[in-house]
Amino acid sequence: MSGCKEEDSRIHSIRTTIRVVPNFPKPGIMFQDITTLLLDPKAFKNTVDLFVERYKQKNISVVAGIEARGFIFGPPIALAIGAKFVPLRKPRKLPGEVISEEYVLEYGTDCLEMHIGAVEPGECALVVDDLIATGGTLCAAMNLLERVGAEVVECACIIEIPELKGRERLKGKPLFTLLESH
Amino acid sequence: MSGCKEEDSRIHSIRTTIRVVPNFPKPGIMFQDITTLLLDPKAFKNTVDLFVERYKQKNISVVAGIEARGFIFGPPIALAIGAKFVPLRKPRKLPGEVISEEYVLEYGTDCLEMHIGAVEPGECALVVDDLIATGGTLCAAMNLLERVGAEVVECACIIEIPELKGRERLKGKPLFTLLESH
Repeated sequence: MSGCKEEDSRIHSIRTTIRVVPNFPKPGIMFQDITTLLLDPKAFKNTVDLFVERYKQKNISVVAGIEARGFIFGPPIALAIGAKFVPLRKPRKLPGEVISEEYVLEYGTDCLEMHIGAVEPGECALVVDDLIATGGTLCAAMNLLERVGAEVVECACIIEIPELKGRERLKGKPLFTLLESH
Repeated sequence: MSGCKEEDSRIHSIRTTIRVVPNFPKPGIMFQDITTLLLDPKAFKNTVDLFVERYKQKNISVVAGIEARGFIFGPPIALAIGAKFVPLRKPRKLPGEVISEEYVLEYGTDCLEMHIGAVEPGECALVVDDLIATGGTLCAAMNLLERVGAEVVECACIIEIPELKGRERLKGKPLFTLLESH
């Protein structure tokens, strides 16, 4: 079996574990639920392995995970590639001095924060979340890292929702996703 | 060097990475900040390894992590011991059907939720969080697991605050912590 074929079968096994919950958190949204992926230890391991294989030789010293589901996938990747893990959190959750980045939601705005001093200028960073929708959260995450002088090597998500065109909003920044929403 | 001595040196290296932030989130609280531990890949790996060594032969099929910092430490443990990871979340975050458990805070109450169907009767579960304070959150987590017929083998935290006597509130349920707050 070729390496390519094997990768396809791993992604297929991941896709079958993701549950779609209609009308959550509000009517019209088909929520892509990765908690059912986490119930399958083999699929969860395959997910982490696919990212680790991609990033282990890329000189990445920072894995930044977006609260809360990026906290589930980011740390195993960071541990496997020997990088630090930096949580990007909702306002007033981080106890130290922070920088903040607002981003626009459908109604109103939200905000991500990062500890000052967690990332040094010149470090190579990977941003991890479970899903890219419109790309607003990932943009805010990248801005935080770039403001302290880090280079964002790539954003890595499990699921992409192509209709929402989040990839375009990243303005050419590399995005890697394992699969598209179904 | 004996195994015991080596373990001590790993715990010492973990302790030195934890930052204490006074008066967060409110006056009088000495916040134990594990984000500085995550910045040290060796200390983060030592932390996970200590838990994995303790739990790998214990027939645990469920690692339940408490939102949000339990999401950082639980998944690497689950992956290493081949267990599923079950997130225990704040209200209205999980998209499927849930059971809920309220718990008392200093002012008012909070609530943890778990997806119905995530854990089967008879499964052996480990509960993971970064810290035990009064033990209220861990009690709620154990209640959720026991209500669906799982056996809680142990609660595992990095840090214990002995003055708050959380261990007593667990009513004899086993608790394992790596170190005490400083």
